[in-house]
Amino acid sequence: MRVGELSRRSGVPIPTIKYYLREGLLAPGVATAANQADYTEEHVRRLKLIRALIDVGRVSVAGAREVIDALSADGRDPLDLLGEAQYAIAPRHRPGRESPEWPAARERVVALVEARGWLVHPDSDVIDLVADALSAGDRLGVAEFFHNLEGYADAAVQVAAMEVRSVLARPDPAAQMELVVLGTVLGEALFSALRMLAHQHESARQLGFSPPTPADHGVNPAP
Amino acid sequence: MRVGELSRRSGVPIPTIKYYLREGLLAPGVATAANQADYTEEHVRRLKLIRALIDVGRVSVAGAREVIDALSADGRDPLDLLGEAQYAIAPRHRPGRESPEWPAARERVVALVEARGWLVHPDSDVIDLVADALSAGDRLGVAEFFHNLEGYADAAVQVAAMEVRSVLARPDPAAQMELVVLGTVLGEALFSALRMLAHQHESARQLGFSPPTPADHGVNPAP
Repeated sequence: MRVGELSRRSGVPIPTIKYYLREGLLAPGVATAANQADYTEEHVRRLKLIRALIDVGRVSVAGAREVIDALSADGRDPLDLLGEAQYAIAPRHRPGRESPEWPAARERVVALVEARGWLVHPDSDVIDLVADALSAGDRLGVAEFFHNLEGYADAAVQVAAMEVRSVLARPDPAAQMELVVLGTVLGEALFSALRMLAHQHESARQLGFSPPTPADHGVNPAP
Repeated sequence: MRVGELSRRSGVPIPTIKYYLREGLLAPGVATAANQADYTEEHVRRLKLIRALIDVGRVSVAGAREVIDALSADGRDPLDLLGEAQYAIAPRHRPGRESPEWPAARERVVALVEARGWLVHPDSDVIDLVADALSAGDRLGVAEFFHNLEGYADAAVQVAAMEVRSVLARPDPAAQMELVVLGTVLGEALFSALRMLAHQHESARQLGFSPPTPADHGVNPAP
């Protein structure tokens, strides 16, 4: 297909497609004439993946290229690829690692991993990311919020088990890795929004508001 | 305290504090002389809150001001305040609402809310945010990932119930609202990182890797 159809199919404007081509996020099409190239279904998929990373995952263009590069390396160990994709998607700005609270927070995460027998490398970057959030809570005077770390871990493993099953049900490694990347980003957006919705419900419930009646689906104050 | 001590206590550089004062994120101190003002513990807390929103929550300065304004309005209904804080923290960029998949995704969220009897207003902005993530999955060809929406809802309500209990255990409405804001941002960062860690574990487990031995806490391939 021509670049115009690629734009229509992917929903990405032509100047943006040209930018991604220059930046190496998108492989060039097959040249058919001077200034004209032919693109494939693979380009449509790749563009959708890039847009999901940038629009939904709020990943930078540089971060998106790291993910694309990791995806393009064939025959890699799937756990290594998962780690690289996670690293590329994770926030770059990591404040607070020099704070006095950080080492204790990291120890707490390592203890959780060991107590649960989680199959995680003890040097994983993601352990540091968990420690970032925990120690931020300590620094900001809301340590009580993370008192029940086990409760978070239960919910996280429940969601992750379901998501990994979904990935492994895909037929081949390329399709699996695409779902790892999209699923990491989209699953986070979905859980984040559902958690906010559940905050509304739980706040109303724990404050003693009554369930909505069939005629009115809003929140009714208890009499 | 002087601005120098406020900077030291909060970890925020003086030029940044002056910027927040100009932008109205921080109330002015009490003037003690020309070009000199006195700040309080309240200023320290407020600065930490602003930094958490911007550093951990990746909220813009404008978004942080919306949250601060909502917090500063006294005597408000707590559920209204929760809604405003959520709205300010949520991503501003909401692609895909014009897509043909969006209305059906929103219907699916409304049906979930009704089936569970969640105490949520049917016009809540957060319903739209859930629909954004769901419909992005449809558009990107990974609808299977969200097949088990109930599983996500179970985990979300489990986390939210725990978090709301933590908020309501605080002694007064101001302290509660501070925890709503910080907790929404920090809890999301914590869950996001724990979910990635659980992805590593579940991938290794479902791919048949064996648990680590006491001598080696890394991941061992099964023989």
